[in-house]
Amino acid sequence: MRMEGPERRYAILAEGRFTDGNAKTAHGLIRYGKDEIVCVIDSKLAGKTVRSTMPHLERDAPIVASFAEALEHSPTSILVGVAPAGGKLPMEWMELLRSAADSGVEIVSGLHQRLAPEFPGANVWDVREPPEELPLFSGEGFDVEPKVALTVGTSAAIGKMTASLEIERAARKSGLSTEFAATGQTGIVIAGWGISVDAVVSDFIAGASEQLVLEAAKTSPDLILVEGQGSLGHPAYSGVTLGLLHGSCPDAIILCADASTDAIMAGVPRPKPSLAARLYEEVAALVKPAPVVAVSVNTRGLSDEEANSFVAKISSETGLPAADPFRGSAAPILDAVSKAPKAKPLRV
Amino acid sequence: MRMEGPERRYAILAEGRFTDGNAKTAHGLIRYGKDEIVCVIDSKLAGKTVRSTMPHLERDAPIVASFAEALEHSPTSILVGVAPAGGKLPMEWMELLRSAADSGVEIVSGLHQRLAPEFPGANVWDVREPPEELPLFSGEGFDVEPKVALTVGTSAAIGKMTASLEIERAARKSGLSTEFAATGQTGIVIAGWGISVDAVVSDFIAGASEQLVLEAAKTSPDLILVEGQGSLGHPAYSGVTLGLLHGSCPDAIILCADASTDAIMAGVPRPKPSLAARLYEEVAALVKPAPVVAVSVNTRGLSDEEANSFVAKISSETGLPAADPFRGSAAPILDAVSKAPKAKPLRV
Repeated sequence: MRMEGPERRYAILAEGRFTDGNAKTAHGLIRYGKDEIVCVIDSKLAGKTVRSTMPHLERDAPIVASFAEALEHSPTSILVGVAPAGGKLPMEWMELLRSAADSGVEIVSGLHQRLAPEFPGANVWDVREPPEELPLFSGEGFDVEPKVALTVGTSAAIGKMTASLEIERAARKSGLSTEFAATGQTGIVIAGWGISVDAVVSDFIAGASEQLVLEAAKTSPDLILVEGQGSLGHPAYSGVTLGLLHGSCPDAIILCADASTDAIMAGVPRPKPSLAARLYEEVAALVKPAPVVAVSVNTRGLSDEEANSFVAKISSETGLPAADPFRGSAAPILDAVSKAPKAKPLRV
Repeated sequence: MRMEGPERRYAILAEGRFTDGNAKTAHGLIRYGKDEIVCVIDSKLAGKTVRSTMPHLERDAPIVASFAEALEHSPTSILVGVAPAGGKLPMEWMELLRSAADSGVEIVSGLHQRLAPEFPGANVWDVREPPEELPLFSGEGFDVEPKVALTVGTSAAIGKMTASLEIERAARKSGLSTEFAATGQTGIVIAGWGISVDAVVSDFIAGASEQLVLEAAKTSPDLILVEGQGSLGHPAYSGVTLGLLHGSCPDAIILCADASTDAIMAGVPRPKPSLAARLYEEVAALVKPAPVVAVSVNTRGLSDEEANSFVAKISSETGLPAADPFRGSAAPILDAVSKAPKAKPLRV
């Protein structure tokens, strides 16, 4: 499950969409990844740079128009960093990726559609493809030594991955060793390993989550940060959420919330953070008690003043430390995680 | 998803294991199935009958020693009614099934191992194989007209399928039209259709559950009984449980409990029925509120007196009607389901 070998040097294919809000995987890799980024391919922005178009990504790289130009930067790998507009890969992308394969460049894809069968003989990493042999949940995860912290959300797509990664950054800054256990395609590309838990057969959600934590524990880090998925209240994904909650055996839970009052989906209102926190704790406690120790608040779209006041409101309503780790600092959340004791399983 | 065509005439392959506790699918089909049972194949019991060896199955059929003998009873289908001891099908079974295929008899299997690839060209129904194209949960299930009742459990393997089927029997006896929405291999063989929800990719648990209910609603029954899976507190299966709870959009929930005090698995105690009932309701209410209306108590192993007193105790602790529908009557549970109103989704 964990990738061996040297770090990658990525060219990122984001043709036509690098800045249009669809390049989550590309952006995640640039901001949080440990691998080198040699260039981005987007003919619309060719000649510009990452920093000049997306300053919050923090790293810089040239934007080029074609794979031929990208090749001059000696990539080891090309990331399909955006989903194609129609769902299916356009012919030009297929040709580009074939050129990459012919040049010995590894193709890395987080798409639902698997690319390995499209490029026989090429070096393809289909990030969403789960390991072939997964065990059922065994309970071995109860005995993991490092502290495990899981992000959960009042809704899906609320910033759980970002919260985990910002807390990881803060932890490293404060001298803690960490492992990020990635559970979705963007997280996996960033970490270089992981399991897309929503792509495994249902019976093995918890088993896959447990295996991730066992794998992360092998380096004996001070802290394992598990990327959450979905939401206990999102009907389409709640099964994945709960399997991950039980399977990863966390010691501390970080609730992710935002300022939106939109329904989770038609007919399903967002639960209040206080209700969500209580239910996550109660459901976790059926298997292994773990407290919700802090709220990570996504304040995107608010002014600084509105954001501060919203974070304070959430903190007061839940009685928990709260912060927006992206806008401000993850330190208050990390502090709450650090103070939480290693949770004891129920068994004697 | 629903099978077309005439009813099956089953020969049941239960070689050496018909009475040893491993023939759950065979027994379920005999007791609850609508298809005809022409014979059981178990050479150890050849010459006896189903009723003489397993009277609680209620239906009778001869037990024969070989497929050649079974063929004299003109089966349309042969059910692999027990899992082989070592996990893998022994050579003799493979040969027997090949004879069946050569005779034009359909092979029906609920095994994890798919049999279709083993018998190319044969008519094979791998019951656990999910439909190829499943949608995500859409919310269409919120608008289903018939009342939907789901069984859930304080633990896994506690009798949820049996409870659903006994309630269905009681409902039919009282003149209600019903559909049984099967979610596991035995239930699917019994019903002749369904989806093994633990075999679908995690992202589609709720979508598959919703599709089942939409399909069951097509005949406009008075009541849809959805077979529950796993348990909210069983770490290996809780994801499937919750996806099914949210995806099937029930109006009424029936909690299945038993007298065991065994741990769910090492380190994970059984929750009290009162706690389980409250948590099922609270978690369901995140998506669509539905009450736990009754407790179906599995009193296997208790004397009649012990059973009565245990059922009374559960009823008193939970404040809900309780009954063992297998030992006694499902009427009290059906009554509670009938009294529950069609639940309203949260949306206006």
